[in-house]
Amino acid sequence: MAIKFNTKVLSLLLVLIVTFSLLLVQSQCHTKYQEEQEEEEEKTAEESLFECFVTCSRHRQNDHELTDCEQRCVKQYQETKKQEGQEGSRRHGGGGGEGTVENHHREDEPAAQRFKQCQSRCGKQEQGQQRQYCQQKCQWEYEKQKREEEQQHGGGRGGGDPTNAKKESKEEEKQQRQNPYFFDSQRFDSKYRTEQGHIKILERFSKNSDLLQGIENYRLAILEANPNTFVLPHHCDAESVFLVVGGRGTISYVWEKQRKSYNLKSGGVLWVPAGSIVYLTNNDDNERLYILKLLQPVNTPGKFKEYFGVGGENPESFYSSFSNEILEAAFNTQSEKLQRLFGQQSKGVIIKASKEQIRALSQESESSPRGRREKESSSWGPIDLLNERPVFSNEFGQYFEASPNHYQQLRDLDVSVLLVNITKGAMVAPYYNSKSTRLVFVVGGSGYFEMACPHLANAKGKHGSQGRKERQGEIITDVHYQKVSARLSVGDAFVVPAGHPIAIVASQDSNLQLAGFGIKASHNQKYFLAGQENIWNEVQSEAKELAFRVPAREVEEIFRSQEQSYFMPGPGQKGKGQRHVASILDFVGF
Amino acid sequence: MAIKFNTKVLSLLLVLIVTFSLLLVQSQCHTKYQEEQEEEEEKTAEESLFECFVTCSRHRQNDHELTDCEQRCVKQYQETKKQEGQEGSRRHGGGGGEGTVENHHREDEPAAQRFKQCQSRCGKQEQGQQRQYCQQKCQWEYEKQKREEEQQHGGGRGGGDPTNAKKESKEEEKQQRQNPYFFDSQRFDSKYRTEQGHIKILERFSKNSDLLQGIENYRLAILEANPNTFVLPHHCDAESVFLVVGGRGTISYVWEKQRKSYNLKSGGVLWVPAGSIVYLTNNDDNERLYILKLLQPVNTPGKFKEYFGVGGENPESFYSSFSNEILEAAFNTQSEKLQRLFGQQSKGVIIKASKEQIRALSQESESSPRGRREKESSSWGPIDLLNERPVFSNEFGQYFEASPNHYQQLRDLDVSVLLVNITKGAMVAPYYNSKSTRLVFVVGGSGYFEMACPHLANAKGKHGSQGRKERQGEIITDVHYQKVSARLSVGDAFVVPAGHPIAIVASQDSNLQLAGFGIKASHNQKYFLAGQENIWNEVQSEAKELAFRVPAREVEEIFRSQEQSYFMPGPGQKGKGQRHVASILDFVGF
Amino acid sequence: MAIKFNTKVLSLLLVLIVTFSLLLVQSQCHTKYQEEQEEEEEKTAEESLFECFVTCSRHRQNDHELTDCEQRCVKQYQETKKQEGQEGSRRHGGGGGEGTVENHHREDEPAAQRFKQCQSRCGKQEQGQQRQYCQQKCQWEYEKQKREEEQQHGGGRGGGDPTNAKKESKEEEKQQRQNPYFFDSQRFDSKYRTEQGHIKILERFSKNSDLLQGIENYRLAILEANPNTFVLPHHCDAESVFLVVGGRGTISYVWEKQRKSYNLKSGGVLWVPAGSIVYLTNNDDNERLYILKLLQPVNTPGKFKEYFGVGGENPESFYSSFSNEILEAAFNTQSEKLQRLFGQQSKGVIIKASKEQIRALSQESESSPRGRREKESSSWGPIDLLNERPVFSNEFGQYFEASPNHYQQLRDLDVSVLLVNITKGAMVAPYYNSKSTRLVFVVGGSGYFEMACPHLANAKGKHGSQGRKERQGEIITDVHYQKVSARLSVGDAFVVPAGHPIAIVASQDSNLQLAGFGIKASHNQKYFLAGQENIWNEVQSEAKELAFRVPAREVEEIFRSQEQSYFMPGPGQKGKGQRHVASILDFVGF
Repeated sequence: MAIKFNTKVLSLLLVLIVTFSLLLVQSQCHTKYQEEQEEEEEKTAEESLFECFVTCSRHRQNDHELTDCEQRCVKQYQETKKQEGQEGSRRHGGGGGEGTVENHHREDEPAAQRFKQCQSRCGKQEQGQQRQYCQQKCQWEYEKQKREEEQQHGGGRGGGDPTNAKKESKEEEKQQRQNPYFFDSQRFDSKYRTEQGHIKILERFSKNSDLLQGIENYRLAILEANPNTFVLPHHCDAESVFLVVGGRGTISYVWEKQRKSYNLKSGGVLWVPAGSIVYLTNNDDNERLYILKLLQPVNTPGKFKEYFGVGGENPESFYSSFSNEILEAAFNTQSEKLQRLFGQQSKGVIIKASKEQIRALSQESESSPRGRREKESSSWGPIDLLNERPVFSNEFGQYFEASPNHYQQLRDLDVSVLLVNITKGAMVAPYYNSKSTRLVFVVGGSGYFEMACPHLANAKGKHGSQGRKERQGEIITDVHYQKVSARLSVGDAFVVPAGHPIAIVASQDSNLQLAGFGIKASHNQKYFLAGQENIWNEVQSEAKELAFRVPAREVEEIFRSQEQSYFMPGPGQKGKGQRHVASILDFVGF
Repeated sequence: MAIKFNTKVLSLLLVLIVTFSLLLVQSQCHTKYQEEQEEEEEKTAEESLFECFVTCSRHRQNDHELTDCEQRCVKQYQETKKQEGQEGSRRHGGGGGEGTVENHHREDEPAAQRFKQCQSRCGKQEQGQQRQYCQQKCQWEYEKQKREEEQQHGGGRGGGDPTNAKKESKEEEKQQRQNPYFFDSQRFDSKYRTEQGHIKILERFSKNSDLLQGIENYRLAILEANPNTFVLPHHCDAESVFLVVGGRGTISYVWEKQRKSYNLKSGGVLWVPAGSIVYLTNNDDNERLYILKLLQPVNTPGKFKEYFGVGGENPESFYSSFSNEILEAAFNTQSEKLQRLFGQQSKGVIIKASKEQIRALSQESESSPRGRREKESSSWGPIDLLNERPVFSNEFGQYFEASPNHYQQLRDLDVSVLLVNITKGAMVAPYYNSKSTRLVFVVGGSGYFEMACPHLANAKGKHGSQGRKERQGEIITDVHYQKVSARLSVGDAFVVPAGHPIAIVASQDSNLQLAGFGIKASHNQKYFLAGQENIWNEVQSEAKELAFRVPAREVEEIFRSQEQSYFMPGPGQKGKGQRHVASILDFVGF
Repeated sequence: MAIKFNTKVLSLLLVLIVTFSLLLVQSQCHTKYQEEQEEEEEKTAEESLFECFVTCSRHRQNDHELTDCEQRCVKQYQETKKQEGQEGSRRHGGGGGEGTVENHHREDEPAAQRFKQCQSRCGKQEQGQQRQYCQQKCQWEYEKQKREEEQQHGGGRGGGDPTNAKKESKEEEKQQRQNPYFFDSQRFDSKYRTEQGHIKILERFSKNSDLLQGIENYRLAILEANPNTFVLPHHCDAESVFLVVGGRGTISYVWEKQRKSYNLKSGGVLWVPAGSIVYLTNNDDNERLYILKLLQPVNTPGKFKEYFGVGGENPESFYSSFSNEILEAAFNTQSEKLQRLFGQQSKGVIIKASKEQIRALSQESESSPRGRREKESSSWGPIDLLNERPVFSNEFGQYFEASPNHYQQLRDLDVSVLLVNITKGAMVAPYYNSKSTRLVFVVGGSGYFEMACPHLANAKGKHGSQGRKERQGEIITDVHYQKVSARLSVGDAFVVPAGHPIAIVASQDSNLQLAGFGIKASHNQKYFLAGQENIWNEVQSEAKELAFRVPAREVEEIFRSQEQSYFMPGPGQKGKGQRHVASILDFVGF
């Protein structure tokens, strides 16, 4: 019985052991599989990276696009990985996420407080437009910071949905991809910032779109300096064109061993050759000085640096890169003295200057003009753009341009400099540039532009010929235009490529003021697509009839309806009362 | 007993259970492993992708090559994946493959039927050479389609072996890789096609070989328009040079706000500046108009687009990219009227025109020539290449070239335009261009070329210095030339890089007629390597003796044997009877 | 009982079976897991490749950098794989490693023996500087070989630590990455080598750093030919500038169908147009001929080849790339004769020539000068750099430059040619070029340079703006300079980019002699940062005071301390006795 019992118990035990063991084995297998499964999820992330790469290579049109596309793949991969990592740490009892957010929070001072500080700084500026611009910037900074805070807290607009911010940024990203020609003011990076001003540089044009590869060796920068300040002497490994877009100052540079100093105000243009030591002052007691710069690097495509000989804690001096032995020998001076000379500056590259210093530095002059240079000085000196006859001008706007066809100092760079003022509520008629690409910066007011781009349409494969099978006798066409548009406000920049039809509209509230540069500008033509100067006027009426498939009379009737040229009333302005006439003086004063 | 029996049964059961369970577990493990194994096969595909990448990076010479090589990796990977997919679906009882082939089959109309249609279209053309060209194209289309059908059915040449087509295409691909300088007519993509003609564009030169990177910003296009047709007005974001290679027509374009219209026939050359609105007519009642175009994009390297203001269903008008508000304001006209104006065209970019319209549009003229332009018009107008004295000419061929050294309109682009006629059975003696790269299009006849390329030889690592260890005192050399050759027939294109020795031979049946463009053409020299104008004549005899290690007398005897210069009898032509003399008139007439 | 026993036994058996089975299953699972684990290690290699890619893309600034970074990833990956492979083969009982090393050992002749041979070759050269240069090279070759041997044997400096060599090379690699501007003589690849001389070409500048992308289409080469030798006629698909840096010879080339022959000695400069057939002789009985060449490829950026018409076994003749039919037709000569003509040369591209041949070939001449060329010959002929007035000169050094501003033959290439001689113990004061990048080759002596580079500093992310969060009101700056320095000895090359401050110091023992080329040289300015010609002299004293934050008096006192300009006593030379004055004649004689 005992045995029987034993047998039974043993059997039962065996069954239990066996099943348990089996379960154990299975569970072990299973556990390992689960782990693997999770790893496989990671592998899946990698696999999808692969597939993404493959997709990229399938749709790619050139090497750069591939890399661009691949970059997006990698971004996606990183995000997946990151999410997995977060999930992983959560599984492992992670927590502390709140703390991280807290930390982030603590890092940032409350946006509102900063806004007030910013506003009070603006209050010190007396003149209207200046102050307005300053306040606009404060507002923008405030909004940007709030946006960032909201994203960090997962709150704000999304009403508690933590994925919202992400979705939004994706939407923004998408729009950006759709419009590689627009750069909002956030895309200027602060390269230098002190209490007295800053220098910001727009990201590389080719960074986000291969369509801008052609202008990859041009960079846009903006310098802002407070009243009564001094920008330390430095040189760049880039050719520069300076355009004063606000305030007034004295720019000095040394070229071919001579110093030249020029007093410039809004609309002043100056070519500063690569390698020239340049320094400048804001001479005004109230206004900030704003200079828009076009830079063309001479060493590495799209890359340039500033070189400061003076320095210390901030900026660093390039002299300090040399060994003491070399410096001692070069200056025939003891190391201690030199360390003092090259180590005192700590205020950054834009510093406060005394009235006396400003006065001494604002003497317009060309030091020791000799021989050849003397004669040439006029043709190499600054250009006063607003003193020129505007290329187009009427009550709806003015357009000023200094072209390399007329100015020798712009010939080597083949660059033109332009200022546009569109009266509030008015617009520039649709037009295109024959061969020049324009880099435009919004200096004042607000508005929007609309542009037709066939490259973008095809790059996205919507109507691309790639995917289409060619069939005998069938009518096929490759033509499609992507509408590209963006709201414009102060500090934004946009690119108008050659051949692309564009219209620019000023808001109802304020004149839209644009400053910019034309690349490959010599012999460029502006062709208007509406208005009295419509390019279609030159096309024979038989050709128009054939082309439009509408009686020539009808075509011409429509083309004659607009009495204005270049600048004209914008959308919804027709029949409105007496317009505010924007004069050149308005423009100068901004 | 019952218990005993039970025990036995129980034991047996246990054994069964245990073994079954074990088997189960094992099989589970196994099943999972199998799955994994299969996944591992996929991983292997990825691993080999990796290894391929690694190999690429090991042999790479520059960034572009890497990407090119990587692309091949990805292609391989995709194919492996695809095969796996197919295997997978087969395993899963896939089938339906027949159906897919069927569908493919049904999609294509029988090639023979199309061939007849094509032939009958040609029959409408009266003139001999025109019809011949047309028929040649029908033939080619037919052969291409048959080839495609064969590949789809796995039949044809391969005699039922389904892998044959693939092998062949691999072979072709390989040959292509060996000859990146030749582009058969299939590599022109139809960008626009209507019943009345089409515009085809050759793929980007740098697409398949980094060796063509230097000409990446040049594109070749061919426009064909039926008799009595009109090409809609448009502009391009590219500089263009037009060369009429068949028929006659009127080209109008608007530049600097003036229209210029020129009647051109075979050999007519015209520079059309970037951004100019251009439209043209085929004035002839019988002949098609053929225009070869060289395009140099101004926005993005290697990329350009056409911009059509007119349009509707086909082509799209760029005006339709603007919002109604902007258009209404720009034209001071109601939206409905504008929609009609920009919405009527649906026939595509090349349309039929009436006799009256053609007559009106074919008036040669320059509208409102004023001041500067009037004087310059002669130096900016069209060039009649066949009216010039040929650069080289004898009974075996003629060579015409318009060089930027002599024509101002070609100076900015630094491009020359050329026409070559090689008498049937004759050849161009081996020669090379000192600094210009030539883009050549076969306009008539057939033949072949042979070229020596040292770059290709080394790129393939055959005799590369890369793999070779340098040893003290040993004689090493890096010189090896890859022979590059291709049969030429109408519609093909090829590139002759600077410095590369090349010989071109016309077939026995017909004159070989070439048209093309020279890049970086100013001050280019053509150096002949045989014939009376052999460049070796300028080398001192001591140098020849040292170089050839053959007595100078012997060298010079050989170099004197050929009495002709430039053009001469081709292979197997020696001692043949009176040659057909190809006159310039022959050439004009093609 | 039996049954009971049976039951017990059975049960026991069952337990045994079960546990065994379980163990089996487990072990099976385990074994498979182990295998997998190992595979996973491999996967880890791939995963880390991925992560590396990801990291690359995160820090990347442009496409090229990505690829550069990726390349490093791949290298790492390869090494990991290789190690795994070695481990694998070890596990599999591999062995044989010793043998491999042995084989390597046997492959190399003892370095010492070669050194002796090399030395004895030098002994044949009579003149002092020549012999010194030759011996220096032997020494260097010897050291290089010893280093290699040590690395192969894991011995030498490392004292038996086999990882040492690797560590060292990693350190070297790191330094190289820190200094992409320096190229030691090993980085010239032998393209051609015979008993009578060789042609070496420096690797592509952009190979290791994107910062040199801007000069990617320039290559540096050095030709060395023994006394009484002949370099075979050839042409290049590159524009060339020749600079004789040692010995004397006759260079002949054919351009526009005329031969030109010039006798050149040290300091002689000659532009050889792309595609020109060129050949040359070393006319001297004792001295080797050294020619430094700058090449600017005309076909593919950064790539060029030599084309030899003459040839046989070595070099190959490009004529042999043509089919026999074409050659027979072209030369109107039978194939056998042609094979003889193009098949005799086997001695390589630099061969011995007899006194008579040399004499005949060294006749200075321009064959058949006609019309235009005759007049121009002076402005296209060679430049004798050492016969010009030096740009700077004092007892501490001389600087000669032929600039495109003054020499028409250098205008198209926009290149200048330079020779610098720094007296032993002296230095060039810190200076920078305003817009030109200099490619410099060390011709004689030794020394070092120090340079400040802001690009490098940021590329490495040390002080980059990338990682820094921008905060309102905070002082930020992007300025940091990486100190770049290298020891210089004969045969090394270095690049001085525009804008970069540099100082160059000669060793105590010998004059440092540099030869080189300036890219984008027209209107370049040299700005000195110390000495009497200090560019700071042109900066107003108020600006200096503001910039240095030191009283102007103090700044100017320091700047006045150095009485010399351009060249001055180097570190540790102050107060030393009468200097050795390096005269121009010294320079000529090297």
